[in-house]
Parts: sequence; structure tokens; C-alpha cells
Amino acid sequence: MHRTKVKVAVDALDANQTIANANRHDFDHAGVAVVNLMSAPGAGKTTLLERVLASLDGVRAGVLEGDVQGSMDADRIAALHVPVVQLNTESGFGGECHLDANMVRSALEDLPLSELDLLVIENVGNLVCPAEFRVGEDARIMVSSVTEGEDKPLKYPLMFRACELVVVNKIDLLPHLDFNLGRLLANVDAVNPGARVMLTSARTGEGVDELREWLASIPDRARATA
Amino acid sequence: MHRTKVKVAVDALDANQTIANANRHDFDHAGVAVVNLMSAPGAGKTTLLERVLASLDGVRAGVLEGDVQGSMDADRIAALHVPVVQLNTESGFGGECHLDANMVRSALEDLPLSELDLLVIENVGNLVCPAEFRVGEDARIMVSSVTEGEDKPLKYPLMFRACELVVVNKIDLLPHLDFNLGRLLANVDAVNPGARVMLTSARTGEGVDELREWLASIPDRARATA
Repeated sequence: MHRTKVKVAVDALDANQTIANANRHDFDHAGVAVVNLMSAPGAGKTTLLERVLASLDGVRAGVLEGDVQGSMDADRIAALHVPVVQLNTESGFGGECHLDANMVRSALEDLPLSELDLLVIENVGNLVCPAEFRVGEDARIMVSSVTEGEDKPLKYPLMFRACELVVVNKIDLLPHLDFNLGRLLANVDAVNPGARVMLTSARTGEGVDELREWLASIPDRARATA
Repeated sequence: MHRTKVKVAVDALDANQTIANANRHDFDHAGVAVVNLMSAPGAGKTTLLERVLASLDGVRAGVLEGDVQGSMDADRIAALHVPVVQLNTESGFGGECHLDANMVRSALEDLPLSELDLLVIENVGNLVCPAEFRVGEDARIMVSSVTEGEDKPLKYPLMFRACELVVVNKIDLLPHLDFNLGRLLANVDAVNPGARVMLTSARTGEGVDELREWLASIPDRARATA
């Protein structure tokens, strides 16, 4: 039975890559750069995104919100007058724990791709499976909250390895935690040497300018490598 | 393709239930009560467990640690001289995001079941798939950290609905967060009316006695309903 499961997973990943390539083609055709934003539940993805989008001057951004159920995050983003589509993954028993390329593809017709410079895909909160499924993105960001502890890169190495940028969030809480930031950074470096790391607090706004600049430059970087 | 995926999931859940029933039979035969401990990554499961196990007088406990990779948590539990087995789920590409009944079954021969009153199975940190896979347990606990926000029961309803006990952890951080405890409790009640809820801080020890008593009484409750 175990062998059967592994085989199914490999087939699913093959099919996913085919559809991710089709998404990639459509994104390039529309001239939109795409970022896949991932984290554990409650790490602060949506709040960071609200902060960034509130003043992303000169970059026309859209958002695709992935959640098992509900549209709370999409409602928050829509309040900023940013084009947003909510994708719910609940069709299965307990819902899919990640977005895959086909789910993303099903949402593309509801987004004004040709009017966007940047599309942010906020994945389902999960440190395992989202890292396994490419969706056609240019860049991947993972958000790691300091409240989650220093050991997460060693426990979920693929997620930390799959990203161009690791955002360490909720740093306003550092004075109140038994948390060793140096140890987290060493653990990130152990699984993804040379990864870009930013320290942020979505609550106080610290570090958000740096994240905004990084996001705003994705379209230029994508064009440069296209 | 989507229909195929759903079919595989249903088959996998059928097979899982068959093996969960076999685990259940073995647990009953050995006279050990079993709890499935679940949460998002970094909610504090292992630290709570360390606190509880350090003085679980009169109850012979063992632990099964589930992680994608590494044995850090098992090492922490072993330091308390508690029988512990580490299960790693990394055989797939990025690793399985949950424990299933067959993975648990594969570890049973390495545990002295007949010498235990209570087996705690610490699941992979994830709020989606662990709730879909029964492993033969008597009770399910989920730990929700206040740093994760009030919206999690509405976003991950199956996880909150599947548990007999919801532990709200890290309450020592409440003074430093924009967090409305009443709203979280209302959201828990909306998806799992009447669920038992406990407030804890693994860091300060607040609420840990109540959790320890609840865990210590599982063997008696399991016998009463057997």
C-alpha cells in the first residue's frame, strides 16, 4: 500500500508540473510576475500583505487567496481595492492542504491578468505540501513567525529550501519569547545556504518597506530573466 | 484529473480506517489509552508534553513523535526517561504532512505497549490532513496558540471539530498581542459546540495541571466506555 501511495504522488506531481508550465506561459503572455506566499497557519501572511499592498505605488497588484474554507482573507484584501479571488480547497473530506497548479489555473479567468504587474498567491497555511506543488510562479516567499520556534527549518527543510526569500515575522514579540534569533538564522542557512532573509513585524511595520521593495522589483527581475 | 484525485483520497481513507481499527484492537488488548495530539507547527505541543510528563504520577506514559524529518522532539521527551519512538514521514518527495494509521502501526512493535497506561501520539504540525486520518486513538487534542489569531477555527473547521479538547496555548503572550480571546472561543464554539477548552502557557506552567489531570483520566475513561 505504501508503494502505491508514493506512485500516486509522483504522478500527481508530474501532472502538476505540466499545468504549472501552462500557467507560466499565460503569466508571461500577460506580462505579470507571480509570487507564491507560504507559511504555517497564523504566521501573518495576510497582515503582511495588507501592509505591503496599502502603498505599493506604481505596481498594479492582484491577489489569489487560498484557504480550506471561508473568505475572510479575501475580504481583508478587497477592502484595499485590490483585485482578489478566493480559492477554497474544501472539495475533499477535510479539504486540500495546499494549492496546486490546477486550482490556481481554475481561478485565472477571474483575474484581470493583463492589467496586473504582480500577482501574489497566498497559499494554504501549511509547512509541508505547498512546497511540493509549483503553480507557475516566479518567486516563492515563506513567512516564519518567531513564535514558532527556532527548529522549524530542520523539521520542514523542503519548505525553507524551496524559497528565494524567508521572512521572519512578529519580531515585535522577541522581548517576550525564549527565542534565539541567531539559532533560527543558522538553521535557515543550514538548509538553504545564502537564502535572503528579512526581519519584519506586520504589527509595527518594521521591515515592511524592505519587503515591499523586494516585491515591487519582482516584475523587473522576471522581465530581466525572461 | 480532479475526480481521480478525490477517488484516491476516499480509497486511502477506507484503508486507513481498516488499519486504525487494527491499532485500536491492539491498544485495547494491551490496556493502553491513546491520545492523538495535533496542532499547527510551533504551537507548543512538545513543550506542553514535557511539562505534563515531568510529573504524571501514577500513569505510565509513552510517546510516539511524528515529524517530517529529524528527532529533536523525541530527544527532548527521552530526556524525561519516557519511552519514545520517532516516526519520520519524509519518504515522499517533501514528506507526508500527517501521520496515518499504517505509519503508527509500523511503530507499535518498538513501544512497550503492555507496560503503558497512556500513549501520546504527537502528530506532524499541520491543521488540515492530520484531522482526516484516525490512527486508533481514544481521544484527540488540538493545541491552538494565541499567536495564530482568532480566525483559525473558521479556516480549519475539521481540525477543531474533530477534537474532544482544544488547548489554547501561549496565553502568557496575551498582553503583547492584538488578540480577542472571546472571539476565538466563540469561533471554536461555532464549529464544535460544547467542546472542552483549556487555557495554558507551557512557558509559565499556567493551566498545565488541568491538562495533566485530563490526560491522566483518559485511561479510566477509556476503560469505562470499553
